[in-house]
Amino acid sequence: MKEKCGVVGVSLKNGGTDQAALITYYALYALQHRGQESTGIATYDDKIYIDKGMGLVSDVFNKVRLKELKGSMGIGHVRYSTEGASKIENSQPLLIGYKNGAIAIAHNGHLVNYRELRAELEAEGRIFITDSDTEVIAHLLVKELLVSDFIEAIRSLMQRIIGSYSLTLLFDGMVVAVRDPLGIKPLCIGKMDGGYIISSESAAIDTVGGTLLRDVCPGELVILKDGQIESHRICRSQNTAHCFFEFTYFARPDSIVDGLLVYDVRRRIGEILVEEHDLNADIVCPVPDSGVTFAIGYSIRSGIRYIEGLMKNRYIGRTFIMPAQEMREIAVRLKLNAIRANVAGKRVALIDDSIVRGTTSKRIVDIVRSAGAKEIHMRIGCPPVISPCYFGIDMATRAELIAAHKSVEGIALVVGADSLGYVSIDGLVKSIGIPKENLCLGCITGKYPIEIPGEECIRKQLRLAQF
Amino acid sequence: MKEKCGVVGVSLKNGGTDQAALITYYALYALQHRGQESTGIATYDDKIYIDKGMGLVSDVFNKVRLKELKGSMGIGHVRYSTEGASKIENSQPLLIGYKNGAIAIAHNGHLVNYRELRAELEAEGRIFITDSDTEVIAHLLVKELLVSDFIEAIRSLMQRIIGSYSLTLLFDGMVVAVRDPLGIKPLCIGKMDGGYIISSESAAIDTVGGTLLRDVCPGELVILKDGQIESHRICRSQNTAHCFFEFTYFARPDSIVDGLLVYDVRRRIGEILVEEHDLNADIVCPVPDSGVTFAIGYSIRSGIRYIEGLMKNRYIGRTFIMPAQEMREIAVRLKLNAIRANVAGKRVALIDDSIVRGTTSKRIVDIVRSAGAKEIHMRIGCPPVISPCYFGIDMATRAELIAAHKSVEGIALVVGADSLGYVSIDGLVKSIGIPKENLCLGCITGKYPIEIPGEECIRKQLRLAQF
Amino acid sequence: MKEKCGVVGVSLKNGGTDQAALITYYALYALQHRGQESTGIATYDDKIYIDKGMGLVSDVFNKVRLKELKGSMGIGHVRYSTEGASKIENSQPLLIGYKNGAIAIAHNGHLVNYRELRAELEAEGRIFITDSDTEVIAHLLVKELLVSDFIEAIRSLMQRIIGSYSLTLLFDGMVVAVRDPLGIKPLCIGKMDGGYIISSESAAIDTVGGTLLRDVCPGELVILKDGQIESHRICRSQNTAHCFFEFTYFARPDSIVDGLLVYDVRRRIGEILVEEHDLNADIVCPVPDSGVTFAIGYSIRSGIRYIEGLMKNRYIGRTFIMPAQEMREIAVRLKLNAIRANVAGKRVALIDDSIVRGTTSKRIVDIVRSAGAKEIHMRIGCPPVISPCYFGIDMATRAELIAAHKSVEGIALVVGADSLGYVSIDGLVKSIGIPKENLCLGCITGKYPIEIPGEECIRKQLRLAQF
Amino acid sequence: MKEKCGVVGVSLKNGGTDQAALITYYALYALQHRGQESTGIATYDDKIYIDKGMGLVSDVFNKVRLKELKGSMGIGHVRYSTEGASKIENSQPLLIGYKNGAIAIAHNGHLVNYRELRAELEAEGRIFITDSDTEVIAHLLVKELLVSDFIEAIRSLMQRIIGSYSLTLLFDGMVVAVRDPLGIKPLCIGKMDGGYIISSESAAIDTVGGTLLRDVCPGELVILKDGQIESHRICRSQNTAHCFFEFTYFARPDSIVDGLLVYDVRRRIGEILVEEHDLNADIVCPVPDSGVTFAIGYSIRSGIRYIEGLMKNRYIGRTFIMPAQEMREIAVRLKLNAIRANVAGKRVALIDDSIVRGTTSKRIVDIVRSAGAKEIHMRIGCPPVISPCYFGIDMATRAELIAAHKSVEGIALVVGADSLGYVSIDGLVKSIGIPKENLCLGCITGKYPIEIPGEECIRKQLRLAQF
Repeated sequence: MKEKCGVVGVSLKNGGTDQAALITYYALYALQHRGQESTGIATYDDKIYIDKGMGLVSDVFNKVRLKELKGSMGIGHVRYSTEGASKIENSQPLLIGYKNGAIAIAHNGHLVNYRELRAELEAEGRIFITDSDTEVIAHLLVKELLVSDFIEAIRSLMQRIIGSYSLTLLFDGMVVAVRDPLGIKPLCIGKMDGGYIISSESAAIDTVGGTLLRDVCPGELVILKDGQIESHRICRSQNTAHCFFEFTYFARPDSIVDGLLVYDVRRRIGEILVEEHDLNADIVCPVPDSGVTFAIGYSIRSGIRYIEGLMKNRYIGRTFIMPAQEMREIAVRLKLNAIRANVAGKRVALIDDSIVRGTTSKRIVDIVRSAGAKEIHMRIGCPPVISPCYFGIDMATRAELIAAHKSVEGIALVVGADSLGYVSIDGLVKSIGIPKENLCLGCITGKYPIEIPGEECIRKQLRLAQF
Repeated sequence: MKEKCGVVGVSLKNGGTDQAALITYYALYALQHRGQESTGIATYDDKIYIDKGMGLVSDVFNKVRLKELKGSMGIGHVRYSTEGASKIENSQPLLIGYKNGAIAIAHNGHLVNYRELRAELEAEGRIFITDSDTEVIAHLLVKELLVSDFIEAIRSLMQRIIGSYSLTLLFDGMVVAVRDPLGIKPLCIGKMDGGYIISSESAAIDTVGGTLLRDVCPGELVILKDGQIESHRICRSQNTAHCFFEFTYFARPDSIVDGLLVYDVRRRIGEILVEEHDLNADIVCPVPDSGVTFAIGYSIRSGIRYIEGLMKNRYIGRTFIMPAQEMREIAVRLKLNAIRANVAGKRVALIDDSIVRGTTSKRIVDIVRSAGAKEIHMRIGCPPVISPCYFGIDMATRAELIAAHKSVEGIALVVGADSLGYVSIDGLVKSIGIPKENLCLGCITGKYPIEIPGEECIRKQLRLAQF
Repeated sequence: MKEKCGVVGVSLKNGGTDQAALITYYALYALQHRGQESTGIATYDDKIYIDKGMGLVSDVFNKVRLKELKGSMGIGHVRYSTEGASKIENSQPLLIGYKNGAIAIAHNGHLVNYRELRAELEAEGRIFITDSDTEVIAHLLVKELLVSDFIEAIRSLMQRIIGSYSLTLLFDGMVVAVRDPLGIKPLCIGKMDGGYIISSESAAIDTVGGTLLRDVCPGELVILKDGQIESHRICRSQNTAHCFFEFTYFARPDSIVDGLLVYDVRRRIGEILVEEHDLNADIVCPVPDSGVTFAIGYSIRSGIRYIEGLMKNRYIGRTFIMPAQEMREIAVRLKLNAIRANVAGKRVALIDDSIVRGTTSKRIVDIVRSAGAKEIHMRIGCPPVISPCYFGIDMATRAELIAAHKSVEGIALVVGADSLGYVSIDGLVKSIGIPKENLCLGCITGKYPIEIPGEECIRKQLRLAQF
Repeated sequence: MKEKCGVVGVSLKNGGTDQAALITYYALYALQHRGQESTGIATYDDKIYIDKGMGLVSDVFNKVRLKELKGSMGIGHVRYSTEGASKIENSQPLLIGYKNGAIAIAHNGHLVNYRELRAELEAEGRIFITDSDTEVIAHLLVKELLVSDFIEAIRSLMQRIIGSYSLTLLFDGMVVAVRDPLGIKPLCIGKMDGGYIISSESAAIDTVGGTLLRDVCPGELVILKDGQIESHRICRSQNTAHCFFEFTYFARPDSIVDGLLVYDVRRRIGEILVEEHDLNADIVCPVPDSGVTFAIGYSIRSGIRYIEGLMKNRYIGRTFIMPAQEMREIAVRLKLNAIRANVAGKRVALIDDSIVRGTTSKRIVDIVRSAGAKEIHMRIGCPPVISPCYFGIDMATRAELIAAHKSVEGIALVVGADSLGYVSIDGLVKSIGIPKENLCLGCITGKYPIEIPGEECIRKQLRLAQF
């Protein structure tokens, strides 16, 4: 599973400072886990400066390149994407020229009605240069800007686009942030010395020495200008649909997402896993790194000793080429090696964050079993994934999702675990602490907050704000 | 002076062959002198494949990358551009998606009304992602395709865009070539085993083993499909306006441009230089490489012995960084070194293709003088450049053009030559062999074939073809 | 602190297999933590093949390059080095030609008498091309090979070189391993399907699917040939001097070094830290990653809850350039971010592996303090470092070592901790489980197992083995 | 045919100037034609600084890297080598450490007794790290330095090494140049503002603004120190053996080699070709670039008109990968394209510098024939090459040399020329103007100036100078 993106926006008080690029850079660094394929920064200082590249933030940018990005305002983006479209043209921010100047857009999310909107725009004779839905957003926004002021244009845009979107924009000497009415993707605001910062996650605000103020509300438009902040509640829906996967997998444990510390959620899930599945085990082992926090919670509640049974190699290259088909097993051991003495002869509670296709879990169980574990009891911090994500997570097709086709017992058999326990949907919701009706649970319930052709929908009512 | 681009189009007979990319690659190799900054190839095989990169054709492409470009149809592009816009986003072919699919466009030339057209399109709410006028062409073409068939769309497009353009396109399973009504930039058609090739210059046709058929006519639309060729004369103007600089500088000497071998033109200019400027010299020396053919002609007609007085370093790197300001003179000698024994004590007729700012000529005269030449008589194969180019040549501003401000005697004084003789405009025209009214002589007469604000215009009548 | 190197040797049964390079590659991958600057592999198949490069194993090698390294025998090396000598010439294995052919050498360690030996060899008129002590080893070995057989030559070599050395060599169709008489650096032997593997650490043996057989003994020469193993005890000292830092910092927790699982040692140190320093704390937090295992042990023994208070960014680039001097604090937060909710208002037992200069510890304490910790009690898994290492660890000068100049209270004051407790030397020794007289504790006692000019020496008696 | 190397040495007057690296860089730039594979510069300023890299001078060095190379003394090297040994370890200058410090050596040439010397040194127990004969020179020099002063050491060295060598060295705060007693490879001295420069060719002296003083004499040792020059005639042979190929192929036409302008030699060969081979032709065409000067001479003497019949593509990449075996003919046309109008229906005197295997000549004749030439008469500026070079030119094996096996008529038949005429050996010697007994004509006579096992030798007497 891969998240599509992370976004940043920075506005510092006027006064000749050219630090927006640097702050944006640091913030992107802290969001690197949200996308490792490409990155970009755009800044504003009378005109828009932009620089993008393939690879990690630390590989793309350096002192010289950051220095070229002048100004006290900036936005940034880190991106992951599926292989086919992995090219520099699709990297963001997307910079477009239009009637009154230029706009730079950074987007995290996915528009459900991208195809329809693109077809509609194409029917008007418009052309597309990238493969991304961000270009659709740019077209629609610019169309509205011809006939309305900026805020009205955003309002109209939000009435047209359906799906998940956390946006930061450079527009007309302002940094602008927009979050979709359901609040699917996270977005928050921080105060920092001399200005404000918008970020997908609060860990980036911490990193640049700022203080988390609050989340951008679902349906809210935030404008940063001259170190001031201005808010417009454009759109209001009865319920939100926060992506629960941010809590169980994507967001950093040290981020506060929609008011909740991710670390706490994961720890609580670990505790609930104890309650939901009876177990006699000798030790609790995490699958590193993503299982660690769940395992700590599991250990605290169960009183079973927490110890590492698998060691992760910290130097796995991003571009690792598998040199020999027949040596696939070695390749797994390159990433994870069992600590034989810790697991041998033990009944192991092995805690992981999720099971998607089951293939990785099978290999991990094999490794622990080969190291001499007496029993292996997998406990999973996310309910069975039975349905795809339509809002920007690159999961797998329904056919590939093991839980779409097999019972828990069947999955345990496939992965080779002595027992297998998922956290229940109710346990998950309780751990998060957000009412069920305000979460997007589409991939674990098959019921989506937005109409998706061929899928069941729990409609979330959209209501326009009245100002 | 730098030419902006070179274009290629290739269509092979159907039959599973994937050689279009390879042929396009070889042809671009032969057009490398027309642009060294970036290059790209797009091919068609049910869908459009595209690959682009910064640098030389030989640096960007290799066996593996060419193999990815499937199909029996392809277009290609080499590009030079001014520093600011030197980025991958501006490289070509430009691939755009629109209502009915995708179009790839490669463009050599410059639209005089680019700003107006872009403003008009922006006023409709359209957005621009690149800085190039090619994107304007794409917008206009797609607009017309909504309401017309392809040929009508091209006709309408050609009524809107003003300037120079030699285009190759991949559209709807066809390779298409278009040349502006004045035929400013060259474009020709070759027959090759199993298909046809379109190229900026015939040398590329030779290189791939083809035979030059003819030039694409000014105002003509050529369609290559299934190894067949189809022609539409879309637009007809009373006169053409072939850029004379292709003959004196840009095109390869071994290319036939608008029916004339470039080598012959340069040789004849060399001969006419003898007639126009009386001279007693001991030897004729070219400034390598561009002065060579002129000098050979000069020697043949004058009977004065041809000998090299300057040797060129063949390994001047493309990215040479000048390590010390104060060593600028060494930097000139890195490129050209005098052969002292050949020039010492001699009266030298030094033949070069053109003088733009005069600074390079001054340094060359210095080198030859230091090597002991008794007299240096510069003879120039292009009349004094007094006015900028508006059709795609990156020359210099009027303020920088030495001939815009100084008499021939004044220039001779600046460059330090004992005498200086330019070929006359009439001599140039006679050497080329195309009637004066069918050439663009804007930069040497100040009178342009198209209206340019602030410049004098010799209007070339545009007449639409009647079919 | 940086370890200098890791070494590998692989010998597979004859039979046309060319997998030695691949196995070596995987093993180096597992040893990447021992050196990230350069890496190299040499293989043997009638002749020696070699390939080296700057950077990580995954960056340097790929399928194509590994395929060139033919044969069923191979050695490999990963290297770290100080800045000045960071160049490809110093990368290993070192391949030398001599009278009877070629030898490739990979070396982990440092010769104490390098300067003397080099001077002696230079006095004979010998020349040196690299800066490394490995070239000294090559010279001495080849000198001996003129007058003795291979085993005698190794014996003579070992009588000359003083210091730490774990060597793997390709010599005359054999893979050879040698470990210094004091066993300072680790080296172990594994059995794998179809052959044997020698490695700095057992984790590499696990990774390639092998089984740890035993350590190479101090003073032992091991020869691998045709899938057979042959041992010669060349040199025997009364005591060994295993580097304790392998247990507390360098080696992977999942490696077994000199018979002891590193994970267990660290966990026991954590436990002893509880016993040695009384403390009332609310939570136990590791400094990730190196403090984790100590902290787990600390939590188990103390009963104080283990929870993460600092989150590490997994994407810190290897070539990070600090873009602004004044933003150094941000740079620290890029690596570590506090989880405020976990530490705020808490009395924190903060567990780290060691303190060298104190600067990093101060910044970490600052971060935790800013996150609201009520009290911060640092507990350190290594006694105060008061003296430099002369055997291959790049520590710091004595002047830079904070514990060389300050009391524990003084250090606590500098780093800003409410209390500071180091494990005692006896506690460390007990945790390791190797008698004190068989460990090198030079950097924490100031007493070295080998005579070092200006330092105190606990002489370890060297005795030659009698065969 | 490829020359192995070019060397430079620069010494500027003391006074804090750090320009030696820059001057060396410019000089190497001018010698780039002598080696394109790797390059390096070493400078001296109390200690030796060195930097080397694979590729062209302009690719390897830049402002930042040159700035690191401090001092007022420097040596440099450009290198070509056969594929197998194309690696950074073999690049030069070779920097070695020895008893009294460090020496950097740059070498152009090849030692005939390399194998014997290396075996002898290996028999003493010495080791070799590179594949180059330069390391042999380093060993021998250092051995002698143990027992003699520097000048005596060079004298002893020169008594041991047999073959071609033009050396520049950095030794003990001096720049040193040495040329072999037969003067096989060129080496000359120039005076420049503030110091002296040593270079393989005088064109490099011109480039840096210096003045050619004289050649380094065969057997001479030149010492540059503090802007002063000091000469020692170490070794004297009755005759010299200057490589004639420097005049016909390797050296730049604008270089003066052993007192003779290369351009003049080539022009005179062209003239003699007219005298030696009767011919009625319509035009004289060079094979560019190396045939140009011969052709100019040919045209002057014969009165036949000089015109270009083949145009060379100036952008042939260094790393061109042939994308398809079956398209080899296109690959030739990428480099050379015929100007049809110039050769069609003509009797062409086609002038080239040499024929080695005949394959390239055949393809060129094919191209000119296809362009419609009525008759093609090849004239070659070098006598038939019948025997290999043992002094550093990478020619071909005897089996590959077409003239070793075929008569001139037979070769004409193979390459497809209507007639073929080589310059005679006497004509060549006369053109050069150096007595036959002072030239190395080994590859065209089979008689070598030094004993080569299996080859005939015209012994050149070596006599040590008496001082």
